[in-house]
Amino acid sequence: MQLHVRLTNGFLRDIIKRIKSPILCTPEVVPESYRGRTETEKTMNNIDDINLSKDCKKYDFEELGKLNEELRENIIDYVSKKGGHLASNLGVVELTVALHRVFDFPEDKIIFDVGHQSYAHKIMTGRKSGFKDLRSLGGVCGFQLRSESEYDFFGGGHSGTSVAAAIAFAEVDKLNSGHNYAVAVVGDGSFTNGMIYEALNNISSEDLRLIIIINDNEMSISENVGAISRYFGRLRTSVKYYRLKRKVKKGLTKIKPIDKAIAYVTRNVKNAVKRLLIKPNFFESLGIGYMGPVDGHDQKKLEAILREAKLLEHPVIVHVCTKKGKGYHFAEEHPEIYHSVNGFDIKTGIQAGEVSSETEYSGFSECFGKTVCKLAEKDDRIIAVTAAMCDGTGLGEFRKKYPDRFFDVGIAEEYAVTFSAGLAASGKKPYLALYSTFLQRGFDQIIHDVALQGLGAVIAVDRAGLVGGDGATHQGIFDCAFLMTVPGVKVYTPQLYSDLEKNLSDAANENCPVFIRYGKGAEIPVSSPVSIEYEQFRVYRFGESNPDKCCVISYGNTVGECCAAGERLSNEGVSVTVVSLKRVKPLDIKLLYDQIRNMDFLLFAEEQIKSGGVSEHIIADMADAGYLIPKFNITAIDGEFPPHATITELKIKYHLDVDGICASLRKGLAGL
Amino acid sequence: MQLHVRLTNGFLRDIIKRIKSPILCTPEVVPESYRGRTETEKTMNNIDDINLSKDCKKYDFEELGKLNEELRENIIDYVSKKGGHLASNLGVVELTVALHRVFDFPEDKIIFDVGHQSYAHKIMTGRKSGFKDLRSLGGVCGFQLRSESEYDFFGGGHSGTSVAAAIAFAEVDKLNSGHNYAVAVVGDGSFTNGMIYEALNNISSEDLRLIIIINDNEMSISENVGAISRYFGRLRTSVKYYRLKRKVKKGLTKIKPIDKAIAYVTRNVKNAVKRLLIKPNFFESLGIGYMGPVDGHDQKKLEAILREAKLLEHPVIVHVCTKKGKGYHFAEEHPEIYHSVNGFDIKTGIQAGEVSSETEYSGFSECFGKTVCKLAEKDDRIIAVTAAMCDGTGLGEFRKKYPDRFFDVGIAEEYAVTFSAGLAASGKKPYLALYSTFLQRGFDQIIHDVALQGLGAVIAVDRAGLVGGDGATHQGIFDCAFLMTVPGVKVYTPQLYSDLEKNLSDAANENCPVFIRYGKGAEIPVSSPVSIEYEQFRVYRFGESNPDKCCVISYGNTVGECCAAGERLSNEGVSVTVVSLKRVKPLDIKLLYDQIRNMDFLLFAEEQIKSGGVSEHIIADMADAGYLIPKFNITAIDGEFPPHATITELKIKYHLDVDGICASLRKGLAGL
Repeated sequence: MQLHVRLTNGFLRDIIKRIKSPILCTPEVVPESYRGRTETEKTMNNIDDINLSKDCKKYDFEELGKLNEELRENIIDYVSKKGGHLASNLGVVELTVALHRVFDFPEDKIIFDVGHQSYAHKIMTGRKSGFKDLRSLGGVCGFQLRSESEYDFFGGGHSGTSVAAAIAFAEVDKLNSGHNYAVAVVGDGSFTNGMIYEALNNISSEDLRLIIIINDNEMSISENVGAISRYFGRLRTSVKYYRLKRKVKKGLTKIKPIDKAIAYVTRNVKNAVKRLLIKPNFFESLGIGYMGPVDGHDQKKLEAILREAKLLEHPVIVHVCTKKGKGYHFAEEHPEIYHSVNGFDIKTGIQAGEVSSETEYSGFSECFGKTVCKLAEKDDRIIAVTAAMCDGTGLGEFRKKYPDRFFDVGIAEEYAVTFSAGLAASGKKPYLALYSTFLQRGFDQIIHDVALQGLGAVIAVDRAGLVGGDGATHQGIFDCAFLMTVPGVKVYTPQLYSDLEKNLSDAANENCPVFIRYGKGAEIPVSSPVSIEYEQFRVYRFGESNPDKCCVISYGNTVGECCAAGERLSNEGVSVTVVSLKRVKPLDIKLLYDQIRNMDFLLFAEEQIKSGGVSEHIIADMADAGYLIPKFNITAIDGEFPPHATITELKIKYHLDVDGICASLRKGLAGL
Repeated sequence: MQLHVRLTNGFLRDIIKRIKSPILCTPEVVPESYRGRTETEKTMNNIDDINLSKDCKKYDFEELGKLNEELRENIIDYVSKKGGHLASNLGVVELTVALHRVFDFPEDKIIFDVGHQSYAHKIMTGRKSGFKDLRSLGGVCGFQLRSESEYDFFGGGHSGTSVAAAIAFAEVDKLNSGHNYAVAVVGDGSFTNGMIYEALNNISSEDLRLIIIINDNEMSISENVGAISRYFGRLRTSVKYYRLKRKVKKGLTKIKPIDKAIAYVTRNVKNAVKRLLIKPNFFESLGIGYMGPVDGHDQKKLEAILREAKLLEHPVIVHVCTKKGKGYHFAEEHPEIYHSVNGFDIKTGIQAGEVSSETEYSGFSECFGKTVCKLAEKDDRIIAVTAAMCDGTGLGEFRKKYPDRFFDVGIAEEYAVTFSAGLAASGKKPYLALYSTFLQRGFDQIIHDVALQGLGAVIAVDRAGLVGGDGATHQGIFDCAFLMTVPGVKVYTPQLYSDLEKNLSDAANENCPVFIRYGKGAEIPVSSPVSIEYEQFRVYRFGESNPDKCCVISYGNTVGECCAAGERLSNEGVSVTVVSLKRVKPLDIKLLYDQIRNMDFLLFAEEQIKSGGVSEHIIADMADAGYLIPKFNITAIDGEFPPHATITELKIKYHLDVDGICASLRKGLAGL
């Protein structure tokens, strides 16, 4: 998941805070009265209505209150059972309902940035039944997904893409002389991402039907904005002002050249007056209208401001303040804990799957965080960097212990990589922790700033491999493939916590870029003793025969399943060698070949894309070295994006579970 | 090269225009007087002084004028002979000299964003002699390069990285309790890039010694800024104001908790007064100081403002207006033509290497632009998108013909890719043209927005392969490797203009993401007839023997050299088959294997990184299909970043020239 719970202390947080002021909606702009539904209509369960998106327009506000309650109850119920994003979805219930009432989907378009907060939208667009399998194979996706519904106009999972897509929709509507709106709902966290600015910089046309909603998760509406500011605020947001502005503009373009001098003066006078009266806020200085802030849980005011925004027919930002976790007191009090959950008990709020503290670490992330802390104690060159994933990557303790040497840069992976390169160039030792899927955002910076300059940055690639319920947008299946193409870098693939500890410790003394990638969750210990331990890989042997006839080459978490498969087959009388690669780049191909040259069958198993993955590299390198390659099979993700499902389900789907590996080995040996 | 000549009509252009006002330097802040050099010192040729960075501090302003002239003369002379960036380098002569006088390099750090405007800096730091081989093998690089000099603190070539690196330098200086400055010089064009904002958002600390210079290339200082604005401007930029602010802040943090209430009131009163008096501009609303604009060719004022900025000890933006091409009238009049040149006659301004119009197209870029224009005539779904490379990618004609269907999004590749995905999702057919090296910036968006959603965007990858003098940061050697890992996309590698025309035309009717990659420059026609033509590849045969014993597999521009080598060897009695891949993904491996199964030796030749490149994919696929692979050699870029040199020099270096290919074939055949 992409955590939006925390924001760095960046300027945007400040700006958004500064411009918060009491609601600006003029009281006279009240929503048109609704007729309400008939008594018969009222008897049906609202959220079972598959045409809710259209039908909710008929509701009166009392009915809406009930609908909002029902939506919240259902979201809490689904997420408590299947896990998912809770706090953010509870926060946007009123907003989602308001959007469906004010706009006409699917003619108008709505894109939720990242999309983790689109549960209410999904329920309202006929997908309630899919929620019983939320984030599981075949159930609804935890993010927006085009293939899932005609109401999901643009999918997502990574931050900052919604405005780009919304501009495209609005531009096409304009080209087609249409009259439909494109709406992007963007959390304040996404405003730390560069793509949002690239998009704002490209809102070139004044007559785009484009509405950007800032979903500001903090309710602490600042009180230190004076009366004059409120007045100017009303002036700015009133439809009259924009209409006037457009009229003046149109009038000016129509006038004859002879009158241009007069127009010039008029414009300058107008500008001078405006400049004296109106102090543009940050967004307005970008040439985009700004309305708000509005209380995102006040249905009437929300709808009023959205209707106003719609009337503008001009790109406008609507600033909506919402409370994360709204309506579920545990989540309201600790939104960061209930941002993304694995399921929980509704009554007690206790989350499922909370790891017992029997093992040394709860998972690789904690192992990373604690180890870097320990290293930093003795090595003051060490600096930790993360991109809005402090807790997710296990750096919470580091932040507390070494606040001066800790940088959370926001959802800004490009910056994070180049900033780390800069730290390394200044003689420091940056440890940057990113999720595999988000590291894709820093690919150019890895090449251009880190590798090309040979700078000794250490990049920890968390959530590498299959990640489960977050689905296609979040699977970490490309990191090995793209990192192995980059010259001069080392790529480590620790199987055990002890490997990760060693990698992190060694990396402090490396003078080249080092990537250390590890999967989600905990290490899978192997009970059998290690047969041979090399620097680059370790070898496990299962069974009595010597030499073995078949070998599995794997790395990281997948080695656990491979060893279990080896154990099972050895009980059936088939001896199996398992090679666990601890480093995949550079590869000592001769040493590796020595392990497998006499095998009859090789199985490669990796939670990575097959095309360009580690297995293909090994094959190509062996062929290039002139080695005769035994018969082999590559078990990996081949030519598709793994959907949302539990990791267990996905491993079965891609034959990376113990059964699947056993079956592949049996098949390979049988086919000899 | 990265063109900064044009800016899109984004908001930043407007903002920068709006805040231009007459010089704000208060007259009393004049630079300290210099003692001037002795008569003996004056006899030496200034720019031959290898300690010029330090020695120039002694110059009086008259001497400086001469130095600036000398620098300009030399830049014009070098670039006229070896090609390079001209207009931008002429524009920053005074600025560069001022920086060296005001700051103490290498203790202070300077980073030129992109770095194409660092020629004067290089000359001033002992690298004049390398300029005779500017951009050639062994000569100075056209960009900043850490390995070249201790004065190049952070290399670059892609836009928007300088501020990230400068922040890192400043943060490390702060951690080390140092007193050195980090200065980034950023062209206004780079402010269209998201990385700059991610960086600005991360200037968290008020006491960073960080100076960001906007090198604003336009001199059209707007006149419509009134007296009151100038007054506030002076207030903002005066050292006193910032000093006061810091004192107040420090004072506030020191006070006891009991007094916090008073402090709160004080602060709010202060803020309220400030808000009434001072209208923050865009940059100030980001919490960063702003000074300027200043005439970038007025040495005295420049130095004065830089000294002021230095005194602040607070992150500050200094807005400097420069004239591209300053001092060379051809370049002043047509900066866009003299932005990046291949060499020219100084007297007449006529550029070398201007292509004769004998052939149909001057190169692949023109072929792309004209073909898309032609297609757009009949298909109104077609929309052209580029990222600040309209002319470079051949889209100039399209822009003129179809202004409504053309989008130049600025140096914003991330946005460009997602925006194109949005256009495709809206039923349009986007043709996005980017350079291979810059497409790296959109890698995540290719995966997450285009491929994952299977959207029919067409992405033309220009400058794919070796690009020559621009050097390591600009070589297009990763595109095949990273694109081939992405599921569901097609990757075309046209060898001839006719291939590109067909690819572009076919792509209009494809419902999946299509990438079409082609090299810099013109097609290399092959005189020999095609032996067999398949959809995926074509086969050339050179020599009489049947069947041939050796085969070269290649694609794109490299096929020209392969065919020439085939022809040469056939004259020596060795028959050669050349397979020109027109599409590298998906690969019909069986059909390809049928061509080469009986060969004794295979040579792969590609202007790509070897690790993960097309050849390795073919080898892995053949092995995976169980085919017996003939003896082979892969000639590609192996584990390094090709330096700056002419394309011819680089081809020789990597054995991709005709001689090299002949030698590899002979060697391969001899070793059988």
